[in-house]
Amino acid sequence: MRYVLRISYDGTNYAGFQKQDNAVTIQSVLEDVLSKVCKTDIQVVGSGRTDAGVSAIEQVCHFDIDSELDTRKVKGYANSILPKDIRLMEISLISEDFHARFSAKQKTYEYYFYTNSEVIPVYDNFATYIGYNLDISKMQSACKFFVGEYDFTSFCASNTSVVDKVRTIYNMDIVEVNDGLYKLSITGNGFLYNMVRIIMGTLVDVGLGKILVENISNVIESKDRTQAGKTISAHGLYLKKVIY
Amino acid sequence: MRYVLRISYDGTNYAGFQKQDNAVTIQSVLEDVLSKVCKTDIQVVGSGRTDAGVSAIEQVCHFDIDSELDTRKVKGYANSILPKDIRLMEISLISEDFHARFSAKQKTYEYYFYTNSEVIPVYDNFATYIGYNLDISKMQSACKFFVGEYDFTSFCASNTSVVDKVRTIYNMDIVEVNDGLYKLSITGNGFLYNMVRIIMGTLVDVGLGKILVENISNVIESKDRTQAGKTISAHGLYLKKVIY
Repeated sequence: MRYVLRISYDGTNYAGFQKQDNAVTIQSVLEDVLSKVCKTDIQVVGSGRTDAGVSAIEQVCHFDIDSELDTRKVKGYANSILPKDIRLMEISLISEDFHARFSAKQKTYEYYFYTNSEVIPVYDNFATYIGYNLDISKMQSACKFFVGEYDFTSFCASNTSVVDKVRTIYNMDIVEVNDGLYKLSITGNGFLYNMVRIIMGTLVDVGLGKILVENISNVIESKDRTQAGKTISAHGLYLKKVIY
Repeated sequence: MRYVLRISYDGTNYAGFQKQDNAVTIQSVLEDVLSKVCKTDIQVVGSGRTDAGVSAIEQVCHFDIDSELDTRKVKGYANSILPKDIRLMEISLISEDFHARFSAKQKTYEYYFYTNSEVIPVYDNFATYIGYNLDISKMQSACKFFVGEYDFTSFCASNTSVVDKVRTIYNMDIVEVNDGLYKLSITGNGFLYNMVRIIMGTLVDVGLGKILVENISNVIESKDRTQAGKTISAHGLYLKKVIY
């Protein structure tokens, strides 16, 4: 039987979602807890990785198990032993056709950043501080050049094994959510390794005037990682939602 | 000479703004740092207290000193020794007529809260979790009944020495800042002890149907603390701005 999970986590204290040796990750903690709760070895499949320090408002996973579960009990027991920064929002039985990664149709990420003459401690807890005077309207104008189906090689970390780098971005915009505090929202059919962070780093360069708005299409077409901006800090990045 | 300071702090790890014996407060840390930087005993006067755990996007203080300061140096030196969760945004010379508390014309507070079936860790870092299913539109309707000049005795902690409890609220509304995440903004000419937290607790009761929207005026007129809702958690409350 296959079960789908919706989970939510603050990734600050984890080495990312994906299981790895000698590091505490969201997946490793989740598998340990579910294995204990279900009294059998559980391996979860996530909709995708999130980098070290990246949080998720909503991440989706699935796992298989031979026996039927009392989902209400599993949820309650799991949340009682999970650390407070990982919460199981929902667990339910699902068709074996469903796959957390391959069935995902869209993902939305949010990136919070703020500009000010000094660090604002309460913003700094969840957003990245950009000390410079940014031209936000230029950054907003640049967003529309990313929307569409493109080869995003320029916006992919070079140390990746992924071959097909064509992805579609459906929506991308920047809104001011409080004085000087901004949120980039980006929805696509999938994202390459570090893609959102490189896009955000590139938008910062646009805001600083280092990259011209009208050159964004050239940066995309170049398929050259060095043409895009830096990989900005993971702090401020949130997986908002996965749509199936 | 009188100097005005704009500061910003995350109040999580402090016993409030106001100096007190045997507790670390924003004021005590600020005075220690400024005394060291200015090489003389400095006592600051804030625009008002903030409760334990309450943060400030912007708080305003003043202090007096005999000698003239190089404000750029003071700012840099102070920020280099202040803890990361307290930042000095600006310091400048000001007329001795100015008083951080008595000259304040308006203050704006923000209260962040979210409703969901489960705790969302990243929201929980800065907002209060209300587990119930709240009728937000009723809470929004209730806001307008607070706007105006009233005796807010019903919304003041009983252990206060303040006699005149008449205050004016200029603006008050609730907006959804992300799915299920809400911000109450409230601007007034001054606030009584725990006033914003009691107003927020009362709005939660409105959202739960325990207090009717049309009864808010009666709760105000009753001048009876027991008619209003509970004093909600300080977690989620931010002093946004002080206007002079």
